[in-house]
Amino acid sequence: MTDHPQAPVTPVEAYEPPYYVAVFTTVRTVEQTGYSETNARMEALVNDVPGYLGMDHAQTPGGLGITVGYFRDADALTEWRTDAEHRAAQQRGREQWYESYTLHVAKVERSHGFIRARGQEGPQESAAG
Amino acid sequence: MTDHPQAPVTPVEAYEPPYYVAVFTTVRTVEQTGYSETNARMEALVNDVPGYLGMDHAQTPGGLGITVGYFRDADALTEWRTDAEHRAAQQRGREQWYESYTLHVAKVERSHGFIRARGQEGPQESAAG
Repeated sequence: MTDHPQAPVTPVEAYEPPYYVAVFTTVRTVEQTGYSETNARMEALVNDVPGYLGMDHAQTPGGLGITVGYFRDADALTEWRTDAEHRAAQQRGREQWYESYTLHVAKVERSHGFIRARGQEGPQESAAG
Repeated sequence: MTDHPQAPVTPVEAYEPPYYVAVFTTVRTVEQTGYSETNARMEALVNDVPGYLGMDHAQTPGGLGITVGYFRDADALTEWRTDAEHRAAQQRGREQWYESYTLHVAKVERSHGFIRARGQEGPQESAAG
């Protein structure tokens, strides 16, 4: 990769544990009608869930997609999992958009961040948990 | 996304909990000399760690990269974290390849998989934990 990002990428930071991650890996079908609209709607909807901390997403073109959702506690995740509009979107995903997917829900025990120092020699690190 | 994958993508499956995930999100620099060779070496090396279950990776071109490593238990993760060659690679990553990164280490409590049924109407689901 030799090109600069189009816009600054701001991944979710290392929060103080414990918190939860929902790791969602997807292989998509060729039939993606309506996907981006629904995805945008889900991103707006999850923002209203108390305890929602953020989301990271990466997509290899023609390959694997990984979405990681971050939540303060199990209650926040339950609220999101049982949201009626979210459940309808999941159902449509199984019918139309996903060849396969896997979900791993996990409690974070340790986290760590690194940001390159600007105009300095040494990098900076931070650890939590 | 309307193009087929070049090769079949086989993400890591939903194992029976508990197991561990190491979620590693990265923003790369423009200086990627040596990255792919080191990355290939690390993928070979981690395969020798007892309890290593697999790895998923997705990279948005010019954007976020997400790597998720899966391990049977905390001991497996510790062995990988403290591997001397891996530590040297991490150090080089901070000096050269990464603008920023975040690591979230978490214990999986629940997992779930879906694979589209071939030549059938209904999809198939499996749950663990």
